[in-house]
Amino acid sequence: MEEKFVLKGNICYSHNADRLECMEQGYLVCEDGRSAGVYKELPQIYAGFPLMDYGDRMIVPGLTDLHIHAPQYPFRGLGMDLELLDWLNTRTFPEEARYSDREYAGKAYRIFADDIKRGGTTRACIFGTLHREATVKLMDLMEATGLKTMVGKVNMDRNCPDFLVEESAEASIKETRLWLEEIKGRYRNTRPILTPRFIPTCTDELMEKLKGIQEQYGLPVQSHLSENMGEIAWVKELCPWSECYGDVYDHFGLFGGDVKTIMAHCVWSGEEETERLRERGVYVAHCPQSNTNLSSGIAPVRRYLDQGLKVGLGTDVAGGSSASVFRAMADAIQVSKLRWRLQDESLKPLTFTEAFYLGTKGGGSFFGKVGSFEADYEFDALVLNDSGLRHPQPLSLQERLERFIYLADERHIEAKYVAGKKVF
Amino acid sequence: MEEKFVLKGNICYSHNADRLECMEQGYLVCEDGRSAGVYKELPQIYAGFPLMDYGDRMIVPGLTDLHIHAPQYPFRGLGMDLELLDWLNTRTFPEEARYSDREYAGKAYRIFADDIKRGGTTRACIFGTLHREATVKLMDLMEATGLKTMVGKVNMDRNCPDFLVEESAEASIKETRLWLEEIKGRYRNTRPILTPRFIPTCTDELMEKLKGIQEQYGLPVQSHLSENMGEIAWVKELCPWSECYGDVYDHFGLFGGDVKTIMAHCVWSGEEETERLRERGVYVAHCPQSNTNLSSGIAPVRRYLDQGLKVGLGTDVAGGSSASVFRAMADAIQVSKLRWRLQDESLKPLTFTEAFYLGTKGGGSFFGKVGSFEADYEFDALVLNDSGLRHPQPLSLQERLERFIYLADERHIEAKYVAGKKVF
Repeated sequence: MEEKFVLKGNICYSHNADRLECMEQGYLVCEDGRSAGVYKELPQIYAGFPLMDYGDRMIVPGLTDLHIHAPQYPFRGLGMDLELLDWLNTRTFPEEARYSDREYAGKAYRIFADDIKRGGTTRACIFGTLHREATVKLMDLMEATGLKTMVGKVNMDRNCPDFLVEESAEASIKETRLWLEEIKGRYRNTRPILTPRFIPTCTDELMEKLKGIQEQYGLPVQSHLSENMGEIAWVKELCPWSECYGDVYDHFGLFGGDVKTIMAHCVWSGEEETERLRERGVYVAHCPQSNTNLSSGIAPVRRYLDQGLKVGLGTDVAGGSSASVFRAMADAIQVSKLRWRLQDESLKPLTFTEAFYLGTKGGGSFFGKVGSFEADYEFDALVLNDSGLRHPQPLSLQERLERFIYLADERHIEAKYVAGKKVF
Repeated sequence: MEEKFVLKGNICYSHNADRLECMEQGYLVCEDGRSAGVYKELPQIYAGFPLMDYGDRMIVPGLTDLHIHAPQYPFRGLGMDLELLDWLNTRTFPEEARYSDREYAGKAYRIFADDIKRGGTTRACIFGTLHREATVKLMDLMEATGLKTMVGKVNMDRNCPDFLVEESAEASIKETRLWLEEIKGRYRNTRPILTPRFIPTCTDELMEKLKGIQEQYGLPVQSHLSENMGEIAWVKELCPWSECYGDVYDHFGLFGGDVKTIMAHCVWSGEEETERLRERGVYVAHCPQSNTNLSSGIAPVRRYLDQGLKVGLGTDVAGGSSASVFRAMADAIQVSKLRWRLQDESLKPLTFTEAFYLGTKGGGSFFGKVGSFEADYEFDALVLNDSGLRHPQPLSLQERLERFIYLADERHIEAKYVAGKKVF
């Protein structure tokens, strides 16, 4: 079978948040799309597998982007002078409205898919827009990249401009069902994910009905939580009965437990909400660059890790300007230092080892056994060529990897495998 | 003469911190290495000048990096888990010690010079090490790039490890004089700048004698100021008579006034020090990425601008991981937002227009009439090709420039001119 092979090179991967394995000139075995382990000497049973020798290059697990908005890709790096709610109205909603036009959607999503394919991401959870046709187009394009992604048609039926709103909960649900029926059995790599935009734009009726769809189709869920203080106050106004913002999702049965759930941001989650996130096993998508660009603040990721929450990284384009999860790792470290210095000295900055874990195994686990090279993990791998990042002194393998996340970009990714298939 | 020509393209430059000029399809005239102005229609008197039509590309002033350490370039992106004083001892001093080896210095500085040449920087103020020979090598290499730079042999005679210290003030001064004599008349683009490392590593005797050299040679000065709280406390211990950290430099006559001076960082400058900086016309080199990586904090640049201080940007490699001043512009905006959110809501975040000014005219003015295209400014220009940063929607010229600082890198710099000479 094509998915039996061995890669040789300098292999780095996380066991957990505190333990990064770095093996020089090791063998990484792929069997039926999964890792059969990393070896210093190649075991005899794999001697017959085709071997690709990547020489001095590094081989690391593929990266997982737990939170990215495909339709916002065109305006990344623009309009970065607004906070969340103003930014949505001024920048985001007008751009997302363009995706009612199939031709525009195809053109825009083609650029998005091309660029994501070239980067380090092998898994992603992606927001579309409320438009069914455009979302199917996005899924078709993502399918063709060979990456494994979850893509959501957005639901939003209140507090939106006329040009970008679903006219009723009923209408939103109808489109969502049509979408799910249309794509049934259509993809190998691409799965739907239920995507209520966030509480301010979703009526109670819509949330209730989405729960019905979630149960019927067994869908995972993605949304936003406690990103900005104005947003949190608004949610409290809209749902005065709620104990915290997260309680609203929980109330409607869309907050972890049996429902695989990602909540992006969690910058300002209080004790109660944090405990709820932990208890329900909700994934926190930490989006450091977005939280910086939109002046939201800095999420207490150190506390989340200490308390045993599930955490991964999101680029959150276009709140984040860069779609690189390597960049998100560096950003996560950097903002954690500023948080430590300026906000709370009891929470130590994130280490490189932790940030690398978050962008690989931490977020990857949302997709199952993904984001490591331990045996039985799905075989997502990147081959990194840092030879263009010249240096006069010797560097250890871990040093090479550390500086890679600060200095490299998609030019330095030489090959990419997803579930054992070579993407490029 | 070769330095008479016209560039046509989409021209952007700053008049001041609040006013960015963006002209589509304008003409930028170079005469004798200086700008003869920007025109919507080319005046008849320039009709005979050779014209280079850059089509839809953008043309912006060259960037000034007010603070970068050439010998630290090899370890950018490494060892980013330490604060300033530990980082100096663990990472910086051992690496700088290698520059006693001429061969190593040549190899390392060659990489540095190549990379800086390829990027957007046209002017830079550069720290070497304490080694005279290596510093001359660095100057030779920088001269060959065609960029205009100021380079300093570092002075440091106390509180340093045995392997990287000058044995006395006398010895430091002797080497400094030898260095200045050796390079006299040697360069067209490269000038010496007096570079006491920072107060903790410079005895009073050394500082006094450096003032003598400064006066004799008419040199500008660069050093560090109020970067980290441990550092500030240390200076107060070493110089109990000082009114503030900056007062120590001032006491020795190396703090503005008639002496062109750059002080890097100024993260924690109090009211008195800020007033002194303003009064003495000292340039603040704001180094946002370094101040983040070393957990130093965030400088109150908004306040400095409001109070009329001279401010530019520094990449501060290797405290900063990236040597790109475009990146420093984006970083400056980003950290100013976190400062506003987490530290002081009275100081509004920096705008894109302000950050672009800081990286061009703000810092450039340290070199004279540099960093703008107004008439009589030295002709430093970059031609930016953003066609690889695809987008489906129309963008205004200012939008293209804004996203450029977030998304682009040296690949997108197509041509570069310094004082009217084409570097590439």
